[in-house]
Amino acid sequence: MSTETKCNPDLVRERAKCTFDVNELINLFYGSEKATKERRHFEDAVLAVKELKDAIPEEYLSHKERYENGVRKATILRDVYRDYKAKHNRDPPPNQITKAVIKDISPFLLHNGMFVPTIAGQGTPEQQAEWLPKAESMQIIGTYAQTELGHGSFIRGLETIATYDPKTEEFVLNNPTLTSFKWWPGGLGSTVNHCVVVAQLYINGKSHGIHPFIAQIRDLDTHKPLPGVKVGEIGPKMGFQTANNGFLGFDNFRIPRKNMLMKNAQVLKDGTFVKGINEKLTYGTMVMVRVGIVGDCSFYAALAATIAVRYSAVRHQSHIKASEPEAQILDYLTQQHKLFIAVASSHVYRNAYLWMEKMYTNVMKELSQDKQDNLPELHATACCLKAVCSRDAGSLVEECRLACGGHGYMASSNLPLTYGVTIAAVTYEGERTVLLLQTARYLMKAWMAALKGKVLSPSVSYLLNSLKESKKPWQNTPEGIVKGFQHVSFGKVKAAYETIQKYMKQGKDYEDAWNLASVQLVKASEAHSRAILCEVSWEAVCSSSASPNLSRVLQQLAQLYLTYWTLETSGDLLLYSNITKDDLIILRDKYEELLVAIRPNAVGLVDGFDLRDEILNSTLGSYDGRVYERLMEEALKSPLNQETVNSSFHKYLKPMMEKAKL
Amino acid sequence: MSTETKCNPDLVRERAKCTFDVNELINLFYGSEKATKERRHFEDAVLAVKELKDAIPEEYLSHKERYENGVRKATILRDVYRDYKAKHNRDPPPNQITKAVIKDISPFLLHNGMFVPTIAGQGTPEQQAEWLPKAESMQIIGTYAQTELGHGSFIRGLETIATYDPKTEEFVLNNPTLTSFKWWPGGLGSTVNHCVVVAQLYINGKSHGIHPFIAQIRDLDTHKPLPGVKVGEIGPKMGFQTANNGFLGFDNFRIPRKNMLMKNAQVLKDGTFVKGINEKLTYGTMVMVRVGIVGDCSFYAALAATIAVRYSAVRHQSHIKASEPEAQILDYLTQQHKLFIAVASSHVYRNAYLWMEKMYTNVMKELSQDKQDNLPELHATACCLKAVCSRDAGSLVEECRLACGGHGYMASSNLPLTYGVTIAAVTYEGERTVLLLQTARYLMKAWMAALKGKVLSPSVSYLLNSLKESKKPWQNTPEGIVKGFQHVSFGKVKAAYETIQKYMKQGKDYEDAWNLASVQLVKASEAHSRAILCEVSWEAVCSSSASPNLSRVLQQLAQLYLTYWTLETSGDLLLYSNITKDDLIILRDKYEELLVAIRPNAVGLVDGFDLRDEILNSTLGSYDGRVYERLMEEALKSPLNQETVNSSFHKYLKPMMEKAKL
Repeated sequence: MSTETKCNPDLVRERAKCTFDVNELINLFYGSEKATKERRHFEDAVLAVKELKDAIPEEYLSHKERYENGVRKATILRDVYRDYKAKHNRDPPPNQITKAVIKDISPFLLHNGMFVPTIAGQGTPEQQAEWLPKAESMQIIGTYAQTELGHGSFIRGLETIATYDPKTEEFVLNNPTLTSFKWWPGGLGSTVNHCVVVAQLYINGKSHGIHPFIAQIRDLDTHKPLPGVKVGEIGPKMGFQTANNGFLGFDNFRIPRKNMLMKNAQVLKDGTFVKGINEKLTYGTMVMVRVGIVGDCSFYAALAATIAVRYSAVRHQSHIKASEPEAQILDYLTQQHKLFIAVASSHVYRNAYLWMEKMYTNVMKELSQDKQDNLPELHATACCLKAVCSRDAGSLVEECRLACGGHGYMASSNLPLTYGVTIAAVTYEGERTVLLLQTARYLMKAWMAALKGKVLSPSVSYLLNSLKESKKPWQNTPEGIVKGFQHVSFGKVKAAYETIQKYMKQGKDYEDAWNLASVQLVKASEAHSRAILCEVSWEAVCSSSASPNLSRVLQQLAQLYLTYWTLETSGDLLLYSNITKDDLIILRDKYEELLVAIRPNAVGLVDGFDLRDEILNSTLGSYDGRVYERLMEEALKSPLNQETVNSSFHKYLKPMMEKAKL
Repeated sequence: MSTETKCNPDLVRERAKCTFDVNELINLFYGSEKATKERRHFEDAVLAVKELKDAIPEEYLSHKERYENGVRKATILRDVYRDYKAKHNRDPPPNQITKAVIKDISPFLLHNGMFVPTIAGQGTPEQQAEWLPKAESMQIIGTYAQTELGHGSFIRGLETIATYDPKTEEFVLNNPTLTSFKWWPGGLGSTVNHCVVVAQLYINGKSHGIHPFIAQIRDLDTHKPLPGVKVGEIGPKMGFQTANNGFLGFDNFRIPRKNMLMKNAQVLKDGTFVKGINEKLTYGTMVMVRVGIVGDCSFYAALAATIAVRYSAVRHQSHIKASEPEAQILDYLTQQHKLFIAVASSHVYRNAYLWMEKMYTNVMKELSQDKQDNLPELHATACCLKAVCSRDAGSLVEECRLACGGHGYMASSNLPLTYGVTIAAVTYEGERTVLLLQTARYLMKAWMAALKGKVLSPSVSYLLNSLKESKKPWQNTPEGIVKGFQHVSFGKVKAAYETIQKYMKQGKDYEDAWNLASVQLVKASEAHSRAILCEVSWEAVCSSSASPNLSRVLQQLAQLYLTYWTLETSGDLLLYSNITKDDLIILRDKYEELLVAIRPNAVGLVDGFDLRDEILNSTLGSYDGRVYERLMEEALKSPLNQETVNSSFHKYLKPMMEKAKL
């Protein structure tokens, strides 16, 4: 961090007030002092590359120029990573500094995030040997093409066809309809030359379900689409402008037999189909990506909170007391109400991410020992936490943005783009409602098992406990609130189950009854997620190794999260737990006390996320608080401000004014 | 509307199912058959102008190109309006067809919306005679410059200074600090040559508060900024990309005395300051603009709902029953839950808008008769309804967008821009929290009057009734729910008041106690707004002149709104009304029944908003349902798709791939 000599005096004062050691928080949040050091070291390396800086912000460029600038930076960044690895003989540490370079999304996102992992996860050793070295070194550039214009969440409905031709030992790829065109894969538009294509396999007229195939779609030398390939980009979006999402259609495009990824199912030379032993093994990548999204949610909430809290410390507006100067807007309780929940939630998501990562590692280990018992629980948990955290994080980012007033609407605040990127996660890698209903299926199964007195998996074992504890009085403590959320989930799971039964008694079959109960089923899944988030984050804080000073503040944040959600969902608690009206009034008062208690540490807490100015990329959020200077500096970069008079005056305005005189 | 011959068969089927006359709904929604006819006639006139169509969508252009294209279209549109007026001897009817042309916001928005009305409202007859003809005919182009870099909601804190110089009979305008620069006025960036500047008036070193001044800032012939004027545009935003928002600073810039708008306060030649008789008369424009925003909310909710409902009728995904084909996603109850509330809310906002318009007209009439009694109620009501409707509408638009899955993230769906424009209204013309706290002040006054047994204004008279009726049992009817929301508001107003008292008893002064209670005060204002929206919209439906077939459906929508919010805020109702857990379970079932009941009419209901394809401007929402064809057609317009290989391949990708081989 830079010295504080030029810092806005409000921020200097805020930092002097902080009651804990910010460095201790940073090291705790990122794992260790060593992790912090390594991360910062890599950040320095990236920031030292001058070519990675934008001359003018991307928002001023055309769609095409943005893409070209994105490719430029992505390739330079690739070099930085490679050089670091060569020099230190290890991958760069986990970091977000690429956000300081690729402000939006990289056109290589799916190369690294899906193309390489899919070959690694679903290719045979021979296939890995053929493609992985080329892909990892970027001699070839790939993406993962699954979603189609007409099909997203329902994978079995995909229409792209791969027909095996035993005569030539090839697959023939076809997109028979407009809706069968691949649509969305990142980098597909103009960047990649390879992709994994997910298609329906047909052998001798018989369908064998969907499988992944590797297809080279552009010439490596000229980059021209190969014959039989129709490919292009899908146009502008709410965010992801430099992700270069594309479409793709095949017309009798042939690929060799060895291009089907055959770690699971196989097609032999003569066309014999050999079924995979365990299709569920491919869940791994999908679950890993969803766990990663929970981690992203922590990052985006931290980013937005840092910007909004610092701005709110610098911004003065109106008076709390007529006799005093204009107040920092951070002093308004309404502002604290909007912002502190974002700070608290970032920690909650971080702890949930670490908890899920552990669960994931365990299950993967078990799978390698052919033990699959805990796979459904992992899958159900990843589904609902991804769904709930991404929607919540989107709302938190947007509340932070709105809390910055008009300036939060400026692209230069970086809050609009941050919202666009955060909210996208509600849809990609499993649409929110679809995922919550998947978890609901798991919960209904668990409920039926509970009714039969069976032992339940750890994450749903509270359903049994709640069944037993339903008569116990409410405890107005963090532990009591955690139990309260479990009771709510219990109550909603039970109610949804009974609603299905009700509709079936009315003569509906199970599937229609499920649909009619699905609003309730979604809410049951949400309640289940909330119960997990509350329990996991409270336990993490209680078992943390933080010093007493830091621990006190982290407990306040965790309690804020618990209390906030108790008040937000008080109707559920009144319906399904033993909380009373008086308990709620006590918690409402407690909530106000927590805001006041956290207030002096607000700036210290966001400093503790240790997000550099270049990552924040925000006129409002920089460490030194030079808000107004930066707003003006950024505005002056506008191409419209490089000319005294825009050509549209002579072309359009002046003729209009002249005509008006007639 | 076009013929249905080429229409998507799902939409044809949906329309055949409709149980009411769509034309009756259209005429009811827009006031009369005559209004519909006139509106459509003007829409035709606008759509007939070929030059108003964009060759490629604006999202592909650079920031500067978008602006230039916006000016081009705005000036042509101006001609269309003028020609219509000349031909028909009346202004064009209320319409949204300009959205089909200016997809975002016009650079003339503040000319028509604020510059002209301010001269009309705050100028003397002489001033009106001088400027209005020029402004109305667009010989001059103006904006309204109030907000500054450092001050938005707290107008008294504005820093721009107008010092009267009696020697030359001029005002000297100055912006002494960076934070005093005007920031945000639409059109200011590169478009206008005049503006109303709101500045602190100083005469002989004495401050006389803020007043409006007319300043010419650019040369009419060359468009160059005049000496002493620093002006430019503020850069890209979340929306409003073509609004050309700008900044402005004066350096000893002189304007004649007659340029202060002096309908209220005056400065005489010798520098004598004559105070205005009634400063509150200037509230008129502000209230009118806020009432207009409630109307806008109805439009944006209708727009998003039309797109999302039609798309959901066309889109098929997954199976409700394994034995049946893939279902229309509109058949999923979870989808109905997301969309129908937007349809219902559009009607609620429309009715609230009409109700407020009537209140506004009455109060303006009373003001002209020097009767001011009802001004505070009008102001308080406009504040909270603007605040609540804009935030709710933003959320509804975003839920509609998310309900369209990945395709809702595409700019070509028009949902991202619609969200950006809708959500902006939460901030402009009075920031949400600031407005809610203004209403809260009114509610606290009303509460104290109620405690003293005084008669209250109509919109808060329920506070007295609730005081009396608190023991009555809950009625599970629409009327009962309306009363329930009044009880909630009553309970929250009371609780906030008592919280202030509590803090004062602890030794806080009133101002600090107010701040500490402000989260509750905001919620009390929200509850008050909800009670009004519920009452006004239910009454409008009950007193509507609709036929029985239509009336049945409109009642379902209104009940959906009531039931939705009962379930959403069940905690409040359990705390503050006599609703029971059993009542809530009945309402939950009722809500599911309403969704099922509305389902067959969903497409008919959005057809009833009568928004042309050109206004919707959406690949997903067109009347004929050609969703996938339009998505591809729009994508093919991308400049990246006009070339086989982008230059970035040779510049960046190929060198990277080559290097990787080494």
